[in-house]
Formats: sequence, structure tokens, C-alpha cells
Amino acid sequence: MLMTAKDYMESLRKLKLNLYLLGEKVDIWVDNPIIRPSINAIAMTYKLAHEPENEALATRDSILTGKKVNKFNALFSSTDDLVTKIKLQKILGQRTACCFQRCVGMDGINAVFSTTYEIDRKHRTEYHHRFREWLKYVQENDLCIAGAMTDVKGHRGVTPSQQADPDMFVHVVERRSDGIIVRGAKAHLTGAANSHEMLIMPTLRMREGDEDYSLSCAIPTDAEGVTLIYGRQSCDTRKLEEGDIDVGNYNFGGQEALVILDDVFVPWEKVFMCGEVDFSIMLVERFAAYHRQSYGGCKPGIGDVLIGATASMADYNGVRRAPHIREKLGEMIHLAETIYACGLACSYEGWQTMAGNYQPNTLLANVCKHNVTRFPFEITRLAEDIAGGLLVTTPSEKDFRHPVIGKYIDKYLKGVPEVPTEARYRMLTLIHAMSFGLVAPSYRTESMHGAGSPQAQKIMIERETDMEYKQKLARSIAGIDERENVLA
Amino acid sequence: MLMTAKDYMESLRKLKLNLYLLGEKVDIWVDNPIIRPSINAIAMTYKLAHEPENEALATRDSILTGKKVNKFNALFSSTDDLVTKIKLQKILGQRTACCFQRCVGMDGINAVFSTTYEIDRKHRTEYHHRFREWLKYVQENDLCIAGAMTDVKGHRGVTPSQQADPDMFVHVVERRSDGIIVRGAKAHLTGAANSHEMLIMPTLRMREGDEDYSLSCAIPTDAEGVTLIYGRQSCDTRKLEEGDIDVGNYNFGGQEALVILDDVFVPWEKVFMCGEVDFSIMLVERFAAYHRQSYGGCKPGIGDVLIGATASMADYNGVRRAPHIREKLGEMIHLAETIYACGLACSYEGWQTMAGNYQPNTLLANVCKHNVTRFPFEITRLAEDIAGGLLVTTPSEKDFRHPVIGKYIDKYLKGVPEVPTEARYRMLTLIHAMSFGLVAPSYRTESMHGAGSPQAQKIMIERETDMEYKQKLARSIAGIDERENVLA
Amino acid sequence: MLMTAKDYMESLRKLKLNLYLLGEKVDIWVDNPIIRPSINAIAMTYKLAHEPENEALATRDSILTGKKVNKFNALFSSTDDLVTKIKLQKILGQRTACCFQRCVGMDGINAVFSTTYEIDRKHRTEYHHRFREWLKYVQENDLCIAGAMTDVKGHRGVTPSQQADPDMFVHVVERRSDGIIVRGAKAHLTGAANSHEMLIMPTLRMREGDEDYSLSCAIPTDAEGVTLIYGRQSCDTRKLEEGDIDVGNYNFGGQEALVILDDVFVPWEKVFMCGEVDFSIMLVERFAAYHRQSYGGCKPGIGDVLIGATASMADYNGVRRAPHIREKLGEMIHLAETIYACGLACSYEGWQTMAGNYQPNTLLANVCKHNVTRFPFEITRLAEDIAGGLLVTTPSEKDFRHPVIGKYIDKYLKGVPEVPTEARYRMLTLIHAMSFGLVAPSYRTESMHGAGSPQAQKIMIERETDMEYKQKLARSIAGIDERENVLA
Amino acid sequence: MLMTAKDYMESLRKLKLNLYLLGEKVDIWVDNPIIRPSINAIAMTYKLAHEPENEALATRDSILTGKKVNKFNALFSSTDDLVTKIKLQKILGQRTACCFQRCVGMDGINAVFSTTYEIDRKHRTEYHHRFREWLKYVQENDLCIAGAMTDVKGHRGVTPSQQADPDMFVHVVERRSDGIIVRGAKAHLTGAANSHEMLIMPTLRMREGDEDYSLSCAIPTDAEGVTLIYGRQSCDTRKLEEGDIDVGNYNFGGQEALVILDDVFVPWEKVFMCGEVDFSIMLVERFAAYHRQSYGGCKPGIGDVLIGATASMADYNGVRRAPHIREKLGEMIHLAETIYACGLACSYEGWQTMAGNYQPNTLLANVCKHNVTRFPFEITRLAEDIAGGLLVTTPSEKDFRHPVIGKYIDKYLKGVPEVPTEARYRMLTLIHAMSFGLVAPSYRTESMHGAGSPQAQKIMIERETDMEYKQKLARSIAGIDERENVLA
Repeated sequence: MLMTAKDYMESLRKLKLNLYLLGEKVDIWVDNPIIRPSINAIAMTYKLAHEPENEALATRDSILTGKKVNKFNALFSSTDDLVTKIKLQKILGQRTACCFQRCVGMDGINAVFSTTYEIDRKHRTEYHHRFREWLKYVQENDLCIAGAMTDVKGHRGVTPSQQADPDMFVHVVERRSDGIIVRGAKAHLTGAANSHEMLIMPTLRMREGDEDYSLSCAIPTDAEGVTLIYGRQSCDTRKLEEGDIDVGNYNFGGQEALVILDDVFVPWEKVFMCGEVDFSIMLVERFAAYHRQSYGGCKPGIGDVLIGATASMADYNGVRRAPHIREKLGEMIHLAETIYACGLACSYEGWQTMAGNYQPNTLLANVCKHNVTRFPFEITRLAEDIAGGLLVTTPSEKDFRHPVIGKYIDKYLKGVPEVPTEARYRMLTLIHAMSFGLVAPSYRTESMHGAGSPQAQKIMIERETDMEYKQKLARSIAGIDERENVLA
Repeated sequence: MLMTAKDYMESLRKLKLNLYLLGEKVDIWVDNPIIRPSINAIAMTYKLAHEPENEALATRDSILTGKKVNKFNALFSSTDDLVTKIKLQKILGQRTACCFQRCVGMDGINAVFSTTYEIDRKHRTEYHHRFREWLKYVQENDLCIAGAMTDVKGHRGVTPSQQADPDMFVHVVERRSDGIIVRGAKAHLTGAANSHEMLIMPTLRMREGDEDYSLSCAIPTDAEGVTLIYGRQSCDTRKLEEGDIDVGNYNFGGQEALVILDDVFVPWEKVFMCGEVDFSIMLVERFAAYHRQSYGGCKPGIGDVLIGATASMADYNGVRRAPHIREKLGEMIHLAETIYACGLACSYEGWQTMAGNYQPNTLLANVCKHNVTRFPFEITRLAEDIAGGLLVTTPSEKDFRHPVIGKYIDKYLKGVPEVPTEARYRMLTLIHAMSFGLVAPSYRTESMHGAGSPQAQKIMIERETDMEYKQKLARSIAGIDERENVLA
Repeated sequence: MLMTAKDYMESLRKLKLNLYLLGEKVDIWVDNPIIRPSINAIAMTYKLAHEPENEALATRDSILTGKKVNKFNALFSSTDDLVTKIKLQKILGQRTACCFQRCVGMDGINAVFSTTYEIDRKHRTEYHHRFREWLKYVQENDLCIAGAMTDVKGHRGVTPSQQADPDMFVHVVERRSDGIIVRGAKAHLTGAANSHEMLIMPTLRMREGDEDYSLSCAIPTDAEGVTLIYGRQSCDTRKLEEGDIDVGNYNFGGQEALVILDDVFVPWEKVFMCGEVDFSIMLVERFAAYHRQSYGGCKPGIGDVLIGATASMADYNGVRRAPHIREKLGEMIHLAETIYACGLACSYEGWQTMAGNYQPNTLLANVCKHNVTRFPFEITRLAEDIAGGLLVTTPSEKDFRHPVIGKYIDKYLKGVPEVPTEARYRMLTLIHAMSFGLVAPSYRTESMHGAGSPQAQKIMIERETDMEYKQKLARSIAGIDERENVLA
Repeated sequence: MLMTAKDYMESLRKLKLNLYLLGEKVDIWVDNPIIRPSINAIAMTYKLAHEPENEALATRDSILTGKKVNKFNALFSSTDDLVTKIKLQKILGQRTACCFQRCVGMDGINAVFSTTYEIDRKHRTEYHHRFREWLKYVQENDLCIAGAMTDVKGHRGVTPSQQADPDMFVHVVERRSDGIIVRGAKAHLTGAANSHEMLIMPTLRMREGDEDYSLSCAIPTDAEGVTLIYGRQSCDTRKLEEGDIDVGNYNFGGQEALVILDDVFVPWEKVFMCGEVDFSIMLVERFAAYHRQSYGGCKPGIGDVLIGATASMADYNGVRRAPHIREKLGEMIHLAETIYACGLACSYEGWQTMAGNYQPNTLLANVCKHNVTRFPFEITRLAEDIAGGLLVTTPSEKDFRHPVIGKYIDKYLKGVPEVPTEARYRMLTLIHAMSFGLVAPSYRTESMHGAGSPQAQKIMIERETDMEYKQKLARSIAGIDERENVLA
């Protein structure tokens, strides 16, 4: 059953979240103006599954059940599946101009699927079977799953079990016959308060002694012991104000929460890894590869909106054809498309896991993400260049609507005569939202830290490279090893 | 008489500003929590003049009166004066971590001083004398002057007099025996609502037909017909909330306003240019050179705070000595100091105008500012890299103070054990303020657009270069012209 | 019939080229030490076709004849064909560390194939048929074809027919019943003196009046009236010296020639475009897309050799594990793989022409090449960083072999004790060859100018972008157009 | 006595160098066509001292003797002296378009001067007195001194005394009553074969056990036991060919040699440090600061020639006013001037040593040089962009002069009609010389490695920064430490 966007929202109302926002417990959170845009963004993933022109990208027949499921809950069963993932993400980025929050779950599902298969092969466990059953349930109910990986980590130079406070990484504090008790916290969990369940995964390579921390399991977002604390966002309270201009992106937004797991019970059938320190890194890296690929889809899509907005500002200012403006817009496109090219390439060059689903090419997925830690910043810089200083000095919408001074603003903030001041206003606040405001973290911080910070990719790029082969090539050309005889 | 910071604030209370903020007229604006930090920032320029260790930088004996005056109201009478300007600005940037708003006035004063001298020489006018008188008054009362240059500009491809609406550039609408009537608006006027008077200057090269737009004069900020509309700032209303953490930079901030001049009367003794289209560009370029120099002082100072905050986050996370962290911190310092070097160089290489005051080297001042349109963005990107994703996902201070969930936050957002969570919190919100929030425009947008957008500098760099000489060098080396005989 | 590398060389000996090198006519050019490495490089394209492990990449069944032909003479009949092209080019770059010169022909063949089809459809001409016949002949004889596009161009601001000298672009000077007479010159024609025939193509958009310049045809490299003047290369005469170290890349090299066409007769059956000004730009752009794609294959391959050589120097100096070295090597890999990703992406996203063969995605092919105009320069800079200053100060091989001073060099230029000085020597000269010497143009200048200079790509990127769509997205998000109702 | 350029050349003829070049001992080396351009470049430093318009920059009254001496042999006795050094270097870079090789000596003289003073103060030695005497001799005879710092270094991860071969760093092998015996080699010693004496300095921080390696002394270049092996340069043998075009920079060039010290005797009066391991790093760092400053002078000067040549090529191609060309030329100027600004800033901000001479600001000198490791590469890339592909494919001058084919070249390589083909030829080969050929190392490799590789500057930048102060600023603004009360 594929939910509509409306169904999805109704389904959220049934959750009994223990959710805090700005120091207060929020009960009717689906309609909370600060939270609602982030729900809208996820809802878009449900909507596209019903759009005839996007259905092929947004849905897939489940390889578990044969039934049509939402792409975000599907297993990638071909490189083509990886490619359509990227194309879907690009459209969603274009339609929301922000993080639509559902990729972590999709990527986590695929990583846990293949990793549990290999754990079971080695350790004769039954995680993979459990996971398939859970996934069928998720697919059939079209649930939204939040991937939960990043621990709060405390002292970054110390392993989980050696931290001064043993709870700095999520871990098992008790093993019972019916399940386990879990404690800890997951930081900046994307889409936490919009999802039905969380898929818990470890955040780094575990070593001997870290057995309690090598944990993967599923937990409903409203399970007992779960507390969600909504992260502050730049300009968040503008959503509480009258009017719709100052917010910039009125409809859509991202969402992150600090999620506290205070002795949460998880039944065994929802436990997918528990103590296998040797597989923690496999799960982390498989997830990371998927998620680094993902940014090759969503960020070019978000970038398209920023490019379009910037070109519009140039139009409204009457300078669109100035050579330096064209040069800068061209550069913005070039950078956004370079990211997209990397997203496509790592997808097309994917490989099949032992469990049967597909992974993107690891090296190229890391290259993709590493570019994402750079180019959106330059694209934003160029947008700020073209938008002009007014970007950060526009009076408020209330001033614009004011009976006395509104007319001054309308008169004096006009650009070319044929465009209403309000259009220019709106375009400025959209760019502001993307560069400073509500959705700036979706395009900037997430590009930097989502799926691992830049250094994490550098390490993988080094590791995935066959340097010995490159050195062999050099030695042969240099004549240190025997040179190739082209006539032989 | 050098005012203290306190005197300055009291002096502001006497102004009868017609000021709007977030759609409401503000009467007691000095104590308005949104506005106050920007007043504090300017107040710092008064404070330093009384600090024994900074007095030498922050004050100067007036070449008009021989009395000690605040540096921001002084004429630069040597290259050393230009250098101390830069060093003073660096300290102020370090102490406020934001725009302290008084440089536009200082730079405008110096530019109008020398330009009026040359206008008078050519046109036998008396602007320079008037200006000296006004400046003496400013110096003696230690007033704060807002430089007012940027017009709202309408269609950027059209000259002032050809705009569909003739008011898109400030202009004279009536010449009377006792003075002139002025109409128009100045956009994002830095420090407008913290200053006693505005020094109006034209914003671009005027041509025949633009006579009414070639205008420079002084107008009290509370003159009749003046309306100030405060620009919205990212996260501005956080200042209205309880607590002092979420704001990031609680004490200091920038300020810009849209200033409407609705038929304002200016007596002739405050008019410094009126119709001399041939001198408009000189005034613009002299001001631009000063102001492009200025950024070689303030931005390295602000950068120092961001670098210090970023290093602190690395400390708090326990990763300060990691090679990639050191590399990135080193890069941040390198970029900030490159800007500072350019600021110093253009100052030391200054030149004396006909009027006797000093200008920075035009080419190098433009080079300085052009680097400013790039490096703070990269410095900020690196700060966001090292700060981590928590930068945009920390719960609010209210959550942190909350009786139920506060303890979770305190426990889980701790970094290394020896640093209190609150310190980490505060450092994160400071970086947030500088990269997304209240003072981000001070470090990013102003770096881009203040004193002219990047393209403006590129044009000046091209013009100030003696390309023919460079080509001659090349022709000689290449043997197209006669080669130099080194033995001759 | 697929020639072996040896067959290919023998076939060259039969050509009667009118070839000049360093001011002298060269008769036995196949064995000329300056020219031979470039022949070896092309020979590698013949060799790979016979290697079992590379045959699948290096050959293809002709869609014209069904027979197996060399990939460089094949039509791309699927996106997979475009992808294998990239992968083949990467291997060839790795094996030769230079330009292997045969891609221009391959790309030209495919561009002329589809363009002639469309000319014929519109103008009812018979070019496509002629071209197929010629291509069959080329395939069956496994000829090497030099693509000849770049005209000498004279004054770049003036159209072909308006040049002071009408011969600055290759053109028809006489139309006869049996064929045409052609005059002009093609500049820096890659592989000209290693190829059997040249495929002449126009170099830019023609306009009315340029009919004589809208020309495509095939001309044997040894046809009467053809003169080839070999371009000087950095350090070219090192190949004439004793020893094999100083050259750096002893076996392989690129080749460019200035080709003069002094009233060359071309029979009609080898004329593929003659006067159709409206199709000139189609041919240019189709070729450009192919060739911009190509650089996504060869340059990452060449880059691999440089990366391997650089890592080896770090080994030889004992600093391979130093963090800053690892960071820089990681960056080199990242940049090389970004190019490769772009090469793959534009290939996978190819499209079918009316004639049936496949073009790469135009936008992404341009993005690919545009990155190529940047990244190899940075990769080279990093190689020079790690290699150390000795890169440009090593004594000559003759010094190294000298009975008196050789022992000094052997002693003092040693790095880590376990690596012979000679190995370090050879690695240094290889890097020198790639950064300054014989093959530096293959990695640097060609990356810049081959397939069009950077500005050419910027123009295409702007043109291939659907900016109106991006602006529509922005207007919807901003609420200027109606916002999307996610629940609808 | 200030020698003229001619005197200088004659003085060189008197030296009995044991010099090898391309495997042969060179006796009449002053007239050797490969070596001569590097002599011309140094000769220019003598010439300028006699030019009325440059005398003020190029000479100075000695603070030792009161007599006028060449700037290159002078002590910097004010910040103004440091500034004129930069300005002189810029002119020399402009006049030679290459390394003029005499700065290492000048910088070494100043570093040894102040370091010996401080050694003597601590160790009660008499180095400083000896050094003053030697310097008087150098000044009075107007000798050219080669600074000799870089050891060959062997395994870079191992200290001098721990190397497998103890000679990998220059060291004392015997102490005698009349002097010391020295062994080892100095790598890529700039201007070695053009100088009268070498000033030996250690290359890195010495530690206990490295006493024999903590060595500074003066050695005539033709002392017994000294062997000079000339480094190969890109395209070096072009200087042996007929004609003057292909060389690119016919008159001037750099020079580096591997200098072998095979048990060379040095009398005590020429020994300036011998065993003081605690002062080795002071000497290294003082020299490094001077030499990193130096690049802020010469490289902008060389850059000017490249910029001029590039603009000329744009003229010759008829595209000088194209917006993208102007943008790129503007960028080249911007980068070159940024370096110059850094060179000036660290000079103006210099400080006085205990010995009385002046050092540039250490932090800013390192910032200067670090930019030099980047910007010349980008400037060169842009030059290659604008110059066009012909840069690496021009036929040889011999082809151009050839009776048969010369006319083709003259016809077809013409750009705009009004510029002779030969001028375009010459400009291309000049750019080639600077980007690939003879003087490319002067602008590229030296910029990278001269005065220390980029990582060396990064380390110094980190060390010279007062990070604790920056962190204190951040803590105060963030409210972790007490916030500043602006009204206090």
C-alpha cells in the first residue's frame, strides 16, 4: 500500500512522540509551524510515488514481495536502481530546495540488508532473516524510516568503551530473553520527528571491547524511553511570524533532532547486529557509500533552485547578460553538474553484494561526496555575489506591508520596472534562506558533514585507490621496471 | 572633547529618529535588544580612544584644529596614519567579531575632503571650506558619522537620470536660496541608526544630464523627512528571547538600514557637491579606495575570532592535534593574514592628495578588497568543517535549561570531559552566529559587497595596471623590441 | 583485418609524407628518434586490440560490415560503447603517459557520420553514403585517421570569409567535375604524421558567405600538395642524445603538426560536406561533445601515472606516510577521479542520433572537459610539490654516467638507502617530462585547449542548461508563482 | 668599488671552477651559451647599481664601512631597506623574466650577521667579528655570493648524524689548528657557477649529536675539492642551436648546480658557526624569513612579464577586449599583486635584531611565500589558456627560416594582419619558456620549493600565530570568559 502525502501526514498524527522544541514539549507537532515544512518535504517523497511522470523513479517492485513499494523503502537491485535513485533525489531537491530527510533510511536499509547477510554467513546468526521480515513490514505499511547513525561521540580521540561516560555511543546495557535494553543518544538525526521508526546503526569501526556498541536495531520513534529534542535552525522562529516572505522557503525545510535513548527496550526480532565488532565497519562503510552517492542527487537539485533564483535576481536587477554575471552563472551550473556527474558515475559503476542488492562504486561515491564538501559553498558564494548586498538588509515583510513605510519600500526596492518589488523581495529571501537561513544547513552544513566529514572521504579515497598499480605504471614508463615493448 | 562610550550612548538618546523595525516605529531604540548590540559595537570605537594601550591608534591630533580627535573623525595625514587605521580596525574586529560600522564615515570624510578641494580648484566653488567647517564641528562634538553612498539603483543598466522612477538615486529636487531639497533613498546604510549625521555621497560615475544626482551633503539622522527602516538580520529575534547563548554574539552586532529621504532640506553650508558631474567618479573612487583598504583591517580581526573559536571547538572535541585539523587551521590563518598583508601594503604605499591628506595605493587597495570577496568564505567553510554538524543542530538554550531534558543535553553534548558542555554550546553558537546568524553578514556579505562588489575591483585592477609597460617588458625579453644589452 | 602494432608501423613506411622537422625534410621518419615515440603511442592502440584482456574494450563489430574493427574506427552504437571508449582511453593513458593521438579521428568519424545523415535528409545530398563507403574502407584496412579540425584562424574576431588572407581557414578554391581543390592549413594536428588519412572538418559555425569554408572531406596524409611541419616540443632534442633517462618518457610521446594544404585535389567520393553552412556548427558541436568526453578517459589515465610517480618519489625520499604528503596524494587522486566520473557520466547518459550512432550527453561532456582545463594543472602542481626542487636541477644522465663525477652523483642524490639512485633519477625525469618536458603538453596544454578552450565549454554549458526551468522552480518555492501543494 | 656588469664578467673569468655540464668539464664557461644567460641575469644586479634611476634601490651605504655597496651585499638597517629590497627585486624580475640568483647570498649574509652576534653573546665565540671582516672584504670587492643551504638530505625522515651515509649533510670531518675540513654536497645551489664565494649554512634544526653538521662558513667557488655539476634545465640545448627564437628568453636564465665539497679546507677566519647545534635553527629561520620575503619581490616582477606577454598574445590574436580575456588578465594581475602586497607588508612590518640589522615580519613573510607556492601556477595556467594551443606546437625557428616551408609558416601563423608573424612567434616562445622551458623553473619550481616547500611555511604560520590570544577573544565574545563591558 503506497500512502499518499495526506495518508502519511495522518499516520504521523497517530504517533505519540516525546518531542521537545525550544524548551517546550510539543504535542500537536504535525501542525506546528516550525516543524510542518519538514513534514511537507518528506511528504513530497510520498507524493511523487503517485505522479504518473515520476512513478517510475519513485517506486519499485519489491524484490522481497513483488509488490510496488516506495523507492525509499526499496532494495537497489541493479545499477539502474542506483541511477534512478540519483535522478529521483535530484527532482526532490528541485521541488523542495532542502533536505527531504528520507535518504538516510533508504541508505541504511540497503546497508543493513547486505551486512546482515554477511554476518549471518560468518557467525551463523539470523539477523538477515529478521531484517527481511522487518523490511517487509516497513514496505507494506509504507513507513518512513529515519536512519540513525551518528553518535554524540564525546572525546573524539577515544574509543566508545573507553569514554569517561560510557553512554557517549549508543549501546546495550542489558540483554534479556525477549530483547535488549539500549542507552545513549544519536545526534542531529535527520527526519527523526517525521518518521515512524529509527534504524539504529553504529557510527564507526568497533574494536575488541566495544561489543556492546556494535549494535543495529529498529526502534519506533515513539517507543518508551525515546526523547526527541528538535535542533534549532537559523531563523526558525520566522515561521511563527505573520506573512510568508521572510522565511524564504515557506513550504519546505529540513529537520534534525537530538534523540535520547534512555533504556529503551528492543525485542530480538528488531535487533540486526549485537556484538559483532568485526562487522561494524562494514555496515558503516556500506552506508557511507550509499549516502555519499545520495548527495550526488539531492545537492544538484537544490543547487538548481539556487541557480534559478540567482539568475532571476540578475534579471530583476537588469544585468543578466553582463559578461561577468554569465560567467558566474555558468560556473554555478558547472559545479552543480560536476556533482551530479559524480553521483551518476558511482551509480552506473555499482557492484552487487553477496546478499544481492547493489552498492555504488565506493571510490567514486567518496569522490562525489568530497566534491559536495566544496562546490555548494562556492555556488552559494556566487549566489551571494550576484544577489547583491540587499540579501541581508531587506526590511521585514511587516515593514513592507506597513501602511506608512510600505510604500517607500515598494518604491525604492524595485529593480527593473516590469518586475513587482514583491517578486524581487521573495527571490531575495529565498536566496537568504538558502545561504543563511532556514534551509542553508540543507545545502551547506549537510554537504559538509552529512555522510561523513571531508576527512572521512579523503581516507576512503586513499584506501580505495590501487596505488601500487599506479606506481607500477610509473616504474614501467620510467624504465625502472622493464619498459613495455609495444611491438611484442 | 572625546566622548566615552557612555557619553556616546547618552548622545544617541537625544536623537529623534524616525525609525522602523519589524513593522513598528521604535521610540526607545537605544535600549531595544535587537538594536543595542550594534550600538555597543560602535561604542567600542569610543571606548578604545580612552584605553591607554590603544589611544595611539584610536586618536589623532586634528590637522584642522590641533586638538585630539577620534581616529574615525580624523584626516589621514601620512601613510603611517593609514597603517594605524588598519591596525585599529583589526583590534576592533577582534573585540567585536562584527562590523563596528564607523568606517564608512571615516572613509567618506577623507574622500570628500580631498575631492572638494579639487572641485573648488576647478570650479571655483567653496565646498572645501564648508566641509572643513562641518568637519571641525564633527570633530569637536565627537559625532558618529554614517557614510551614505549606495543608492537603491533600480534598473542597474540605466543611468540615474534615465530611470523609469527618477528617485532611484538620491538627487536634488529643488534649489533654494538657503539650501536644497533632497529626495531618494540610500540602501543598506551601515550604522545609520547609530549615527548623528549622514554624509551623503554619489554612488557611481555621473554623466551629463545627471547633474541633480551629483550630490554630496551632510544630513542629521533625525532631520525632518528622514525615515530609517532597519534591515532584517538572520536570527534577529533571538535577541528578544531569554538567555544569551543562542544569539552567539550577545554583545555586538552590525546594523544596516534603508534610509528614505523624503524631500529633506539641507542648508548650503552642509552641501559639498551639487551638480559637478565631472567629480562624482573621483569622490566614488577615492572613497572606494579607502573603504577597500579598510577591509584589510576589520576582516582579519573578525577572522581571528572565528579562527580562535574553531581551534577551541577542536580542543573541546579532542582533535586539535590531528594533522588535518592543523592543516585547516593553518590555512584559515594564512588566508586571514594574506588579507591583512594587503591591507597593510596599500596603506604603507599611500600617496598624498592635493588637499594634503593621504590615500592608500589604489591598485593594492583593490587587490586587498578583491581577496576579501573570497577568503572569508573559505575561512568560514573551514570553520564549519571543524566545528562539526552540531553547528546547525544544537537544541535551544531553553532546552538546555529545561528541568527535564536539560540534563540529557548536558550529558550528551559534552566533548572532552574537562570542558563543560555549556562552553562547547557557547562556542558552537558563536561560530553559528558568524557563519549563518547575526554577524554572518558582517563577515560574509559585507566582505562581498561592502565597498563594491568583486567586479568593481576587477575593473579597477585592470585600469590601475600599466599594461603597456608590462607588454614592453615582454617585447624586449622576446626580442620583438631591442633586447637589453646588459653590458651596455 | 586488424593490424598488429608491427603491421601498423610497416604500413607507415609506405607513406610518402612531405614532412619537415627542425628545418629539415625527413624521409625515414618512422625511425626518427624524435618522431618514433609518438608512433609507439599510436601503435599501442593497435596492440591492445590483440590483447585478450583488452580486446573487448579495444575492438567492436562494425555496424556497417559486421566484421571486428578497431574501436578507434568504430561507430558508437550504444551508451555502453561510449563507456568502453572511456575505459579504453584510460588504459591507454596509463600505458603511454601521453596523448595516443587517435581519438580525434574516432570522434571525427562519429560526428561526420551523424551529421552527413542529417545534411542529406535536408539537402538531399549523398554525403552520408559516401562517408559510409569511405569508413568501410578505413575499417577494413584498419587505417589510422587523423581528425583535422582546427584552422589557423588569423584574426580571431573575424569570420573566415572576411579575413585579410582568405586562406586562414581551409576552403574550396575550385570545384571540378571529378572533385575539389582545397587550400589552407590545419594547426597543431594531432597525430598527423602517424596517420594514413586526415578527416577534414570545419572549426566553427559558418555563416552565409562562408560556403567555401563549410567543408569536410578525407585526404591521405601523403597526397600531393600536403606538407606537414612537425611542431617543436619541450626538450625534443633530448631524444637525440645518448641514454634514456633525461627524456623521462623514453618510449612514448605525443605529436602535433602544422599541415599545409596547398591546392590539394579531393575526389567527390571523399567529400562529406561542401557548402552547407547551416550544418557546420552541428558537425563542430557533435565532434566537440565526443572529444570533450574523451578527455574524461585519457587524462585520468595519464594522471594515474603521474600520481604513481609522485607517490614513488615520496617513497624514495622516505616521507610517504607524512600527513601532508598523504593529503596531497589523496587530493591528486580525488581530482583525477572527478574527471573520470564526469567522463563516465556523460557516456552513460548518451543519446542516439538520427543516423543511429550515439552521442554523449552534451552538457555533461562539456562539464567533463571544463574540469579537465583545471584539475591536471593542480595535479601537476602537487606532483611538483612532492617531487621536490631536484625535479629541475638534476644533472644530466651523461654526468651520472661520467667516470669522475658520476660517483658523486650516485652518492649524493640517493634518497632512502634501499632505493638505487638511478631509480630516483628516473622517477624525477618522468615527472619532469610530464610537468615541463616532452609529454607535459599531453597533460597540460591539451587539457586546456584540446576539444576547445575553457570558454568554449562555458558557452555550451550555458546553452545546454534549461535555465527557464530552474527559474520556474525558484519562483514556485519563493511563492512568486503558485507554491506547490504537497497534499494535492 | 662597485663593479660594472662588464667588470663582473671579467672577474668571473679569473675563477678556476671545476665545473661539469652535460657530462663534460667546462673550462671557458663564461662564454658557454648554456651558462651565459644565467651570468647575464646576475650581471643585471651589477648594472642597476650604475643606473641613475635605480641606484637608490640597488645600492646602499655600508653600515660597516660607510662606503656605497651593492644592495645584494648590504645589511638591511631599517624596514625601509627591506622595502627597497622588494622593489629592487621586482625590477630585476621584470628586466630578466627569470631568477637573477643573487638573493640567496644577500639573505644569507643578513641571517649569518645577526645569528653570529647572538651565538657570540651566548657562547663567547668570535664568529660575528670574523663575519664582519669577511663581509667587508665581500663588499669592498663587490663579490657575488652564493648562499648554500640545501643539503642533499638522503632519507628525509632521519637526522643528519643518523643517516646511513654520514655525508648526506655538509659537515666537518676534521678540525685543525688553521681551519676545518668540510665534506658533503649542497643541492640545486642557485648561481653557484656565477659566484665568487659560497656562504655555507645548515639546512635544518640540529639536535645533540649533530654538532659536526652545525656549520656555517665561506668557501670560494673555485677552492680545492669543490666540484660543481650544472643542473639540466628544460630545453637547455636550444641555446646551442642557431637562431634566437626557440629559446624564448634568449638573454637571461637561471642556474642551479649540485656542489660537491670533497674534503675542502676552510680557514678559521671564514668559519661562522661550528658545532653550536642550538643556533642552527635560528640561522635557518632567519634566512628563511628573508628568502620568503624575497619572493614577494622577484615573482611579481617575473609575473609582470608573463602578464605582458599574455596580453600581447591576446592583442595578436585580436581578442584582447573579449570579456573572458579581460577577466583572466585581471585575475593574473590580481594574483601577482597579492604576492607583491605580501612582500611589501612583511618588509614594512620588520623588526630589528640584537645585532642591529632588520628582519621582515616572520609570520607575514611565510604567508607571502605560501601564496607564492600557489599563485604563479594559476597565473601560468591562465597564460596557457590565453596563449592558445600553438604554444606547444609551433614549428622550430629553422622551419620558419626554411626557404621552402618558411613562407607557409609566415602565411599561416599570422594573427591580426598588422602584426608580423615573427612577433607572434617570439611572444609564443617567450610564454613557452616561462611555462615549460628554460625559465619555467624560475617561476614555477622555485616558487614552490625555493626558501622551503609549502609545508615548511604552514608549520611556521602555525607557530608564529598567537592562537591562545585568538581563543581568548572567542571565549570572551562567546561569554565563556567574562564578556567585555563596553561601558566600563
